[in-house]
Amino acid sequence: MKEKKPLILVVNDDGITAPGIRSLINVMLDLGEVVVVAPDSPQSGMGHAITLGQVIRYKKIKIDNGLQKDYSCTGTPADCVKLAVNKVLSRKPDLLVSGINHGSNSSINVIYSGTMSAAIEGSLSGIPSVGFSLLDYSWDADFKPSLEYIKVISKNILKHGLPKGTCLNVNIPAVSKKKLKGIKVCRQADANWLEEFDERNDPTGKTYFWLKGTFHNFDKGNDTDEWALKNDYISVVPVQFDITAHHAISYLNNWNYDVL
Amino acid sequence: MKEKKPLILVVNDDGITAPGIRSLINVMLDLGEVVVVAPDSPQSGMGHAITLGQVIRYKKIKIDNGLQKDYSCTGTPADCVKLAVNKVLSRKPDLLVSGINHGSNSSINVIYSGTMSAAIEGSLSGIPSVGFSLLDYSWDADFKPSLEYIKVISKNILKHGLPKGTCLNVNIPAVSKKKLKGIKVCRQADANWLEEFDERNDPTGKTYFWLKGTFHNFDKGNDTDEWALKNDYISVVPVQFDITAHHAISYLNNWNYDVL
Repeated sequence: MKEKKPLILVVNDDGITAPGIRSLINVMLDLGEVVVVAPDSPQSGMGHAITLGQVIRYKKIKIDNGLQKDYSCTGTPADCVKLAVNKVLSRKPDLLVSGINHGSNSSINVIYSGTMSAAIEGSLSGIPSVGFSLLDYSWDADFKPSLEYIKVISKNILKHGLPKGTCLNVNIPAVSKKKLKGIKVCRQADANWLEEFDERNDPTGKTYFWLKGTFHNFDKGNDTDEWALKNDYISVVPVQFDITAHHAISYLNNWNYDVL
Repeated sequence: MKEKKPLILVVNDDGITAPGIRSLINVMLDLGEVVVVAPDSPQSGMGHAITLGQVIRYKKIKIDNGLQKDYSCTGTPADCVKLAVNKVLSRKPDLLVSGINHGSNSSINVIYSGTMSAAIEGSLSGIPSVGFSLLDYSWDADFKPSLEYIKVISKNILKHGLPKGTCLNVNIPAVSKKKLKGIKVCRQADANWLEEFDERNDPTGKTYFWLKGTFHNFDKGNDTDEWALKNDYISVVPVQFDITAHHAISYLNNWNYDVL
């Protein structure tokens, strides 16, 4: 009897036509039956937003001649996962892959990332889930050097599963295949954006702002994703949705909460 | 010499005119100098979204006769914090309070919460930050029973500060003052939404969906926020923005990542 192919759900936040997700679909077609449910327009920086107070729609579309099924959705990346699991797929997928994002989701970027919110949403539904991001924001970024690594990570997840309540955040340096040194399992670096707002006037003279900022890594550790990426390694960070700061509980129990 | 009053930044996700934030402002006016930078419209379920690819505007407005300064902003709760810190305030605030949210942000709701994304954004900027939520979604929810507890928690934060990289997620049961049993420091419960999509047809016959779901608590522990709230305690959960699943790193190091 022929073994049943794994069912793989593909999501992203750059929109269903982005080159990053099309590359990811091609890799996944080697590993199983592929269903794509992705936003119909770019959703970068959406964090873990979900659509409340608005309706959601989706439709089957055809983008290329691949064997996957493509569905575009009006919602956020997290909505796409909820909709796929509840309406589109006939069974729970064996793997959820999100990306390949055009741009970094390393260190603190993980909390703003639509790509990673889809992976976290998958892990909430008990699906082994991973987000992939390439450190190149351009539309014509070269995803090729990363593809065999994406395949080996995905095969590992299909084979071993992931610990309960976790998913993976994989970032890939934008270097040639020759320069890529391999994979490092890491922790999220203590890094942050120092924001600035670019202030301008519209044609009627009213002020508006563009959010911009510069990225700063405050973390000297060589076990972080930022270290790995700077040294031409692919970073793999396990991520969890329990965000309790367990170490702070005893500190807070020493406070006086008496009200008169 | 008169002691300098603490500077308190007030944010929310229900919009600057919501009764919850107006109640919170009144409490904070007893504790310091208050500046409000909040969304000009409701932003529930926005998670940690930020505005990229769109401009942001803000303006000073007057809503009531309080001594606070009110600014409404077109962005998300996280945008409001970034804008406040960088453009509106002349110095780093001593405290950031977000809310009072109309509705729960306990357990897994924390990751979808605009209220809590503002508090997390505050902690990223090194500001002692806390989000308050009342378990009543209605616009005319009764915030009064919670106010003295909100004051005592805020005074504690002003006095002691918070551990680096953490903020507080405070949820308040919607019960009378007499029934409120006090404060419990907790961990985030292992609870989740089981989603359904309500399928309908628009006037042209096209299908659309409303996201809905039922909440399930899978956690039997009596040290969780869900346990506390069910037993008429106010839950205080310390929350962190390092979402690395540290316990999973050694497991992932045992995988074979060889590519041919």
